[in-house]
Amino acid sequence: MMKAYNLIAAFTILALASTFVTAYDPSPLQDFCVAIDDANSAVLVNGKLCKNPSLANADDFSYSGLDVPGNTSNQLGGHVNIITADLMPGLNTLGISLARIDLAPNGGLNPPHYHPRGSEVLLVLEGTLYAGFVTSNPDHRLFTKILKPGDLFVFPFGLIHFQLNIGKTPAVAIAALTSQNPGVNTVANAIFGASWPIYPEVLTTAFHLDKQFVEDLQAQEWVNPT
Amino acid sequence: MMKAYNLIAAFTILALASTFVTAYDPSPLQDFCVAIDDANSAVLVNGKLCKNPSLANADDFSYSGLDVPGNTSNQLGGHVNIITADLMPGLNTLGISLARIDLAPNGGLNPPHYHPRGSEVLLVLEGTLYAGFVTSNPDHRLFTKILKPGDLFVFPFGLIHFQLNIGKTPAVAIAALTSQNPGVNTVANAIFGASWPIYPEVLTTAFHLDKQFVEDLQAQEWVNPT
Amino acid sequence: MMKAYNLIAAFTILALASTFVTAYDPSPLQDFCVAIDDANSAVLVNGKLCKNPSLANADDFSYSGLDVPGNTSNQLGGHVNIITADLMPGLNTLGISLARIDLAPNGGLNPPHYHPRGSEVLLVLEGTLYAGFVTSNPDHRLFTKILKPGDLFVFPFGLIHFQLNIGKTPAVAIAALTSQNPGVNTVANAIFGASWPIYPEVLTTAFHLDKQFVEDLQAQEWVNPT
Amino acid sequence: MMKAYNLIAAFTILALASTFVTAYDPSPLQDFCVAIDDANSAVLVNGKLCKNPSLANADDFSYSGLDVPGNTSNQLGGHVNIITADLMPGLNTLGISLARIDLAPNGGLNPPHYHPRGSEVLLVLEGTLYAGFVTSNPDHRLFTKILKPGDLFVFPFGLIHFQLNIGKTPAVAIAALTSQNPGVNTVANAIFGASWPIYPEVLTTAFHLDKQFVEDLQAQEWVNPT
Amino acid sequence: MMKAYNLIAAFTILALASTFVTAYDPSPLQDFCVAIDDANSAVLVNGKLCKNPSLANADDFSYSGLDVPGNTSNQLGGHVNIITADLMPGLNTLGISLARIDLAPNGGLNPPHYHPRGSEVLLVLEGTLYAGFVTSNPDHRLFTKILKPGDLFVFPFGLIHFQLNIGKTPAVAIAALTSQNPGVNTVANAIFGASWPIYPEVLTTAFHLDKQFVEDLQAQEWVNPT
Amino acid sequence: MMKAYNLIAAFTILALASTFVTAYDPSPLQDFCVAIDDANSAVLVNGKLCKNPSLANADDFSYSGLDVPGNTSNQLGGHVNIITADLMPGLNTLGISLARIDLAPNGGLNPPHYHPRGSEVLLVLEGTLYAGFVTSNPDHRLFTKILKPGDLFVFPFGLIHFQLNIGKTPAVAIAALTSQNPGVNTVANAIFGASWPIYPEVLTTAFHLDKQFVEDLQAQEWVNPT
Repeated sequence: MMKAYNLIAAFTILALASTFVTAYDPSPLQDFCVAIDDANSAVLVNGKLCKNPSLANADDFSYSGLDVPGNTSNQLGGHVNIITADLMPGLNTLGISLARIDLAPNGGLNPPHYHPRGSEVLLVLEGTLYAGFVTSNPDHRLFTKILKPGDLFVFPFGLIHFQLNIGKTPAVAIAALTSQNPGVNTVANAIFGASWPIYPEVLTTAFHLDKQFVEDLQAQEWVNPT
Repeated sequence: MMKAYNLIAAFTILALASTFVTAYDPSPLQDFCVAIDDANSAVLVNGKLCKNPSLANADDFSYSGLDVPGNTSNQLGGHVNIITADLMPGLNTLGISLARIDLAPNGGLNPPHYHPRGSEVLLVLEGTLYAGFVTSNPDHRLFTKILKPGDLFVFPFGLIHFQLNIGKTPAVAIAALTSQNPGVNTVANAIFGASWPIYPEVLTTAFHLDKQFVEDLQAQEWVNPT
Repeated sequence: MMKAYNLIAAFTILALASTFVTAYDPSPLQDFCVAIDDANSAVLVNGKLCKNPSLANADDFSYSGLDVPGNTSNQLGGHVNIITADLMPGLNTLGISLARIDLAPNGGLNPPHYHPRGSEVLLVLEGTLYAGFVTSNPDHRLFTKILKPGDLFVFPFGLIHFQLNIGKTPAVAIAALTSQNPGVNTVANAIFGASWPIYPEVLTTAFHLDKQFVEDLQAQEWVNPT
Repeated sequence: MMKAYNLIAAFTILALASTFVTAYDPSPLQDFCVAIDDANSAVLVNGKLCKNPSLANADDFSYSGLDVPGNTSNQLGGHVNIITADLMPGLNTLGISLARIDLAPNGGLNPPHYHPRGSEVLLVLEGTLYAGFVTSNPDHRLFTKILKPGDLFVFPFGLIHFQLNIGKTPAVAIAALTSQNPGVNTVANAIFGASWPIYPEVLTTAFHLDKQFVEDLQAQEWVNPT
Repeated sequence: MMKAYNLIAAFTILALASTFVTAYDPSPLQDFCVAIDDANSAVLVNGKLCKNPSLANADDFSYSGLDVPGNTSNQLGGHVNIITADLMPGLNTLGISLARIDLAPNGGLNPPHYHPRGSEVLLVLEGTLYAGFVTSNPDHRLFTKILKPGDLFVFPFGLIHFQLNIGKTPAVAIAALTSQNPGVNTVANAIFGASWPIYPEVLTTAFHLDKQFVEDLQAQEWVNPT
Repeated sequence: MMKAYNLIAAFTILALASTFVTAYDPSPLQDFCVAIDDANSAVLVNGKLCKNPSLANADDFSYSGLDVPGNTSNQLGGHVNIITADLMPGLNTLGISLARIDLAPNGGLNPPHYHPRGSEVLLVLEGTLYAGFVTSNPDHRLFTKILKPGDLFVFPFGLIHFQLNIGKTPAVAIAALTSQNPGVNTVANAIFGASWPIYPEVLTTAFHLDKQFVEDLQAQEWVNPT
């Protein structure tokens, strides 16, 4: 049994080696680099580890289901379904991703957050949103707009922004972001819901709160919209 | 009268000078650089010519009307409304743009084209599309997919792609692109509809056509979908 | 008098024109592009508006005073003196800036913030700091370290981070950032101290606070460390 | 025999492991990253997979044979020999490649194409060329020039361009491109010679052709110049 | 006379203003940005100052004369004619330039230099060259090759390199560089021929020379090959 | 015994495979990519080979010891301790590094060098420095400044620069550079101390030295400050 095991191991290695060796030649140009989570079957395409291009197919470049409303029965009354290279591997290296945002009537919220690696354009499909962003130090200027279906709003790179459903019907919006992996950082959650509590002294001074209050907040559950 | 003219000229210069001089100080950080088509009222923000940030407002970052269907009563049966930094100046420097694509039933077409400065993700909102892209030399592999509402498809950077409405109802899609000015190049139009005809010898050899045929094509009207 | 005025105007224009025209030739290479806040005296260097290179001097590339302690007698017990291209014009286009951070004994704080356009490396010169950063959604992992003189810590691009003086003596640190204009966004201040108050509904849901509490926070003064 | 096989496998793994482990240390700086098609012998250099720098030699950075005329006895009367990182591995990560273009007398053609990842500068060594490029939508302006030996012409990033030998002698030109892997997309071939035929409906509407004509074109052989 | 002068001034301003205002609209896409040394007639194209695209013509994208041998009757026995965006304005923003290198028989030299903003590929057209580059600290590995016509050699980004004619006939080579303005820094000239002498103490220690020797070198004329 | 060996090999492979496969899922976002010198335990994070993010800890992002003076008892009287991604793996992909420079009293030198992949800002902590940089061809302008504690000086990307201790006490400075791996190229050492001597003919012509003198220099030991 151990020998059989060894045989599998040996074959795995050889398969790996030959894949690496031979795949570079027939497709030397990098028109795309489909992401792959198993490095063993990746090939080098223009110096990157990608799915063997000759095995790529249309499914790598597509995704279905953005017509399905997200479940907004949660703390925030909101749901964000962001399709990054993790879910749609053909996005890899192409610098773009797309998200569907659902917000419940009367206050469903996509809470203040920013994208460390992306700008965002929002298109409202249904409902009425109060959307805005805040500039950085020293001015912290607030730019807001009431958005209706067909309206676009852009949130500049790395700035804190939010959307609130101020209508009586569900709201749906599409967001496009300038990275296949833009990151999302929900500010309140990062601050009060970190994996290990930040020293309360940091937050009492920064947020003008007393220590007990900070510790109470840190003890709560912080739900991400994504 | 000439003197009055001179006075206006002098004031114009001084106004220009003082705008340039004073605007840099209060907003030294480049959170954004709103595009402006009148350099006289632009200011230098982090080395770029932008609208004075203190005059920027939410309208610079928004746009309305993408809920309005485009007119598809044309040669192609298609219409593309692309919102670049030209129409939505807040997009400037942020590396993203959005478009609405309308295709008439039974064959409305967004003809083969590519974006010299961008990748594209397409989201179908209504209808049924046959969409695809072709890789570059030497393989010219065709990747296609029948797309329904809620489906995404990505067209890698710089590759030729197209969408055809194969359904019996109007189709609507949203496209996001990785530049505030990605460019659109409709291939047939660039080749046969150039502002000044390309020597027919170039096209006869390249496209396997005879000279008369090429000249007939060059004499036609080539309508861009945008 | 108007004629004299005209004369000045005319000379201004000609000076401007001749500066523009002639400055490009003798220094066509862009070894640097010194920032300038008066576009009238800028020249085009490799397509950018820069100070005329032949007028650049060593002072454009230097700055004095980072040996002077910052005043930490404020709400936060901290002071950050960041030297960007605004204060040291030779930094323009070179992608780097430097800051001196002073934190008062026993709790002086550089509150949670992030740089929308930069990573940061911190070097402690004096004192003992509790420094950390938090990763983005969904994990919000907290990475912290107690830092002593000679210790380095890196805060990755766009992530929220902070430093707290946990010693009984003043602390001094130097921070280097990967942009001549990285931006600083103090999170609490952007959220609760925006130029125009964000709708309280956004903050009650996001921060688990009641409306009165949010409005009280919004009414306070929020001091930036920079 | 199986045991011997296992032994080889085990040694391969250990060799691989030790190469990976030890190669990083002695050459930590990335002056270059020579491409390698066998990931098993690659090492991590500044986060990239490269040939072990200590094994790199001058041959990795050189290539011979661009003095040899290309064979132009083909459909197009042209031949392009492009030297990318695939043929000259030292080009990897350096952002440049070079090509030799040979065009037969009296109509040898480098047909309309574009580079999805590069601009190009052309230098004519021998012969007389009609060269040009077309701008993108909406203008499709044609820029052309008759080129003689010693003449340069630049084809901007991503635009369609071509060269036609209009002289009675062979023409030779050198092209430099702004990527070690710029890609080449011969437009007619991508459209009519895709690996799997594009629905004729797409091409009839786009190119103003009838369906039978399109299908005839799709049935032909489309030769790439490279 | 002054009034006439004023009139010209006024017209200049108005022409300037109207050019700025109107030129943005008809050519919103940045297929290119032709360099211009007179900012007064520049227009904003995608946020950059460029020649009005509607005034651009084929001459902006071409250059003649690289078939003419350079004069090698100088100290170095070499001549480099580099065509940057300064001489060929259409190269602006496109990231490439080209040079012709002539080296006299029996020792004509392109002395050790590097390009602060570019990699280089060299193609030998005539003669026999000894070419090489040196890696940076700590190894300073020398990579050299004897090059014949048709041979390519690549000099990685920012590394010191050189070419020496070791044949008995003139040598000619073409170099392509990865910037429209890569810069050239001839090392000996920068060190010993700086506009204002570097303190000799710097050079005695660095180059293992005595002070008198350094001062003698600094007093000499240092001829650039370009 | 061979069997045991095989077993280890097999387990190594399987561990490798499963690490690769499973690590991608739980941490799909690239907030950082900690460098790793053993590709066997690397995982794919956003297409890069990084340390498994779930194994990253605060030590990866920190480094200790920059408070310790460097040993300046050497040929140059100087010592540079540069902390790149090689020593502080969390710097990987973040585009920054930091160095401590120690220069002995009365002439300790950081000799003329440049960074092929970085700009640098210098902050003097102790002592008095004569610092400068030289622009590239054709002007070779020297920009110098006498620097005291608290003074900053910036050395633009890729230009040759140096620091000399002109005081009677030790000098200490901190340098920040715009890459996690900027490279250092000490000019004299690259020229005269290359691993294999450059043909003396290259250096006699370039440096205005006779052949014997060049060979004597090439025979010496050239000590790097780093």
